[in-house]
Amino acid sequence: MLEELKREAYEANIALPKHGLINLTFGNASAIDRSKGIFAIKPSGVDYVFLKPDDMVLVDLDGKQVEGKLRPSSDTPTHRRLFLAFESIGGVVHTHSSHATAFAQAGRSIPIFGTTHADYFFGDIPVTRKMTPQEIATAYEWETGNVIVERFTSAKFDPADFPAVLVNRHAPFTWGHNVAKAVEVSIAVECIAHMALMSLQLEPKLPTIEAELLNKHFKRKHGPGAYYGQTGNC
Amino acid sequence: MLEELKREAYEANIALPKHGLINLTFGNASAIDRSKGIFAIKPSGVDYVFLKPDDMVLVDLDGKQVEGKLRPSSDTPTHRRLFLAFESIGGVVHTHSSHATAFAQAGRSIPIFGTTHADYFFGDIPVTRKMTPQEIATAYEWETGNVIVERFTSAKFDPADFPAVLVNRHAPFTWGHNVAKAVEVSIAVECIAHMALMSLQLEPKLPTIEAELLNKHFKRKHGPGAYYGQTGNC
Amino acid sequence: MLEELKREAYEANIALPKHGLINLTFGNASAIDRSKGIFAIKPSGVDYVFLKPDDMVLVDLDGKQVEGKLRPSSDTPTHRRLFLAFESIGGVVHTHSSHATAFAQAGRSIPIFGTTHADYFFGDIPVTRKMTPQEIATAYEWETGNVIVERFTSAKFDPADFPAVLVNRHAPFTWGHNVAKAVEVSIAVECIAHMALMSLQLEPKLPTIEAELLNKHFKRKHGPGAYYGQTGNC
Amino acid sequence: MLEELKREAYEANIALPKHGLINLTFGNASAIDRSKGIFAIKPSGVDYVFLKPDDMVLVDLDGKQVEGKLRPSSDTPTHRRLFLAFESIGGVVHTHSSHATAFAQAGRSIPIFGTTHADYFFGDIPVTRKMTPQEIATAYEWETGNVIVERFTSAKFDPADFPAVLVNRHAPFTWGHNVAKAVEVSIAVECIAHMALMSLQLEPKLPTIEAELLNKHFKRKHGPGAYYGQTGNC
Repeated sequence: MLEELKREAYEANIALPKHGLINLTFGNASAIDRSKGIFAIKPSGVDYVFLKPDDMVLVDLDGKQVEGKLRPSSDTPTHRRLFLAFESIGGVVHTHSSHATAFAQAGRSIPIFGTTHADYFFGDIPVTRKMTPQEIATAYEWETGNVIVERFTSAKFDPADFPAVLVNRHAPFTWGHNVAKAVEVSIAVECIAHMALMSLQLEPKLPTIEAELLNKHFKRKHGPGAYYGQTGNC
Repeated sequence: MLEELKREAYEANIALPKHGLINLTFGNASAIDRSKGIFAIKPSGVDYVFLKPDDMVLVDLDGKQVEGKLRPSSDTPTHRRLFLAFESIGGVVHTHSSHATAFAQAGRSIPIFGTTHADYFFGDIPVTRKMTPQEIATAYEWETGNVIVERFTSAKFDPADFPAVLVNRHAPFTWGHNVAKAVEVSIAVECIAHMALMSLQLEPKLPTIEAELLNKHFKRKHGPGAYYGQTGNC
Repeated sequence: MLEELKREAYEANIALPKHGLINLTFGNASAIDRSKGIFAIKPSGVDYVFLKPDDMVLVDLDGKQVEGKLRPSSDTPTHRRLFLAFESIGGVVHTHSSHATAFAQAGRSIPIFGTTHADYFFGDIPVTRKMTPQEIATAYEWETGNVIVERFTSAKFDPADFPAVLVNRHAPFTWGHNVAKAVEVSIAVECIAHMALMSLQLEPKLPTIEAELLNKHFKRKHGPGAYYGQTGNC
Repeated sequence: MLEELKREAYEANIALPKHGLINLTFGNASAIDRSKGIFAIKPSGVDYVFLKPDDMVLVDLDGKQVEGKLRPSSDTPTHRRLFLAFESIGGVVHTHSSHATAFAQAGRSIPIFGTTHADYFFGDIPVTRKMTPQEIATAYEWETGNVIVERFTSAKFDPADFPAVLVNRHAPFTWGHNVAKAVEVSIAVECIAHMALMSLQLEPKLPTIEAELLNKHFKRKHGPGAYYGQTGNC
């Protein structure tokens, strides 16, 4: 069932190593069918080289595996938490891409220093608080989703304005209206992190981008006045 | 019309990801036919993988689209401004190449530290001032061209001596007597930026290159006494 | 004899340049048949491009070459020392991968800053003490093995919990239950080293990962409670 | 004439971009036939993609072009100077490889921090003094060779112990008993420079390698007691 959804999830998963976002088996992508409340996700610990569309595991929003012979990614509860909290998103991607992960490990948000960043995010790419020993000891992957949601709720962030987060000590998660868009955001996050790291080498106290330029760039690509791309809604 | 011009612009555009200068759809190249006052430019937000020569959009120097079904790059007014101000140039390239963009984000020119740099530029690669809220709010992309031109006019820079600029908080623009040369300069800018960043790590107060060595290297490749390459005019 | 073992060692050796872990001929991999007490190792100074399975040299645990026309890697005594001391391992890999070697040259362990690291190691990747002039002057490669073993013995490290080491001033050695796993660990070490270097740029005094998160990540992939991957024993 | 020599020089030249040592047309390799006193060198400013063995230009040790329709590399006098001074070498390579050039631009030798470096060099990779305005104004490329030779003569360096140099503000030159070996050294220099830069980030005051380890590693690959590789004389 849901062959098209599984294919989308599959294509997103294999795009990750192709774009240099994945080392070994660190990473996974999922795509949801909102009408059915079911998402397709990568099986756990399978090499990308051997992955097939049919290996994708189908899971519903209660966390029940509804199809698939393989065990789903161990990060499945994090994906599920995000699909439940962020109702407008259609796909989630998790990578350990090197530069973004360096910020996550350091517990630092990625500061918004230029228009490349502003084309995708309406501010710094946020980092979560550290997880508590109790959160880690119990339903760890579900709680990982919870600290992400907490970060967005407390700051009143719209997930469409901030389509990525860094989990403290861990790595980035991204999302989009579909999983292909979430892959694109993952590429952007890695590239932005690399640039930010170098800008910080040049100017350790570099202030973030001016509000007027941030507004201009984000809005020319997003929302009702958008004029970038062919549809005005890239 | 202008099939050859469109092909040149197309070749330049697809050369950008091939040389690792482009992430996602960040970047564009244009080529002008001076006799007709028309330039060919990449359409907005189209993936490089799917680009065809016929997708190139033709625009005249008044900014009127004269051919093409797709919308031209949102950066088209910046290209047009440069073609109007710098009359000797035949092509313009814009990238967000990572190392050069790191300097642009930090509002720093790329200091001239060695002969690699001196083979292409007669001094530091300049950075513009920041744009004002008013410039950003109105004709943003046209005003981006204006701050570039202002930077060159105020410093009395010849665009042939300085075939690139960093737009503050944004990224590099390059040019050349034709668009293939502008691509070559984009490659050089990225490479020079990378080297400069590392030289600064080694020596944070490194002075720029000695005048006599700058003169020698720039002049052996450019101008009447040039003796590099097969034509003396590389 | 031992065609399968030689093929395994061969596959591991050619995987090293494929994953960007090797420059020139710096590196080697070996696989052991524990029942026979014989291991297969790369011949010394042979270009990876020309390597064939039959070039692998067979050596026993007393250091006697039991098959092969070529001379074994000059690092053979280090491999032998590790096979003797760490009885559970089936393969050893040595590279000079750039980021990990930068730590080794600086005499620094790779600090454990995030979950990528914790998925493979139960703490910092240790570095040996410097070798003494006498150790260097005598059986250098054997003594290289000895300082590794000394590091593990003195700290009571289980080689399964710490499947890699940095030899001071030199480079990393890794191991695993088979040589393919040792290659995987080599990839992980290089990637972890790169991330750690960048995290240190961001936060020079960054503390290492919290104990509870380290435990969680290491244990979800290793040991009796593991639930990552398809077998629970990745 | 000298078809074999031209082919060797050609192979070395096209190996440079293949190994990521060359950006644009920055670089050249030459091979000498000592019995004839003639060397083959890359033509000036020709794209590596279009290079053919027959494009190699033959030049004698007096600097006279003895064959070839194209102009030889503008760096030809530097190569010639090195062939005259260092009588045991059979090939010279010049690149602007990024990490090594960063050291050259900063006027810094590459400090010897580990065994990777010690396998190729018997100490730091030296940097020349800056050239004087007069040296630059007159026979610039010949004088570039002269400052290299001066550096070696004043320090009594054997070119076999130090098969590379950084020209201040410029970039590396390497050499070897043949041009293929000079290419190999160019790869090693770039890799060593990258590692040194990172080790310096970790430990800005890192002392260089201990004398006994330097001796051991250099001597196990070079000279009468060498035991690395298949011939003992790699």
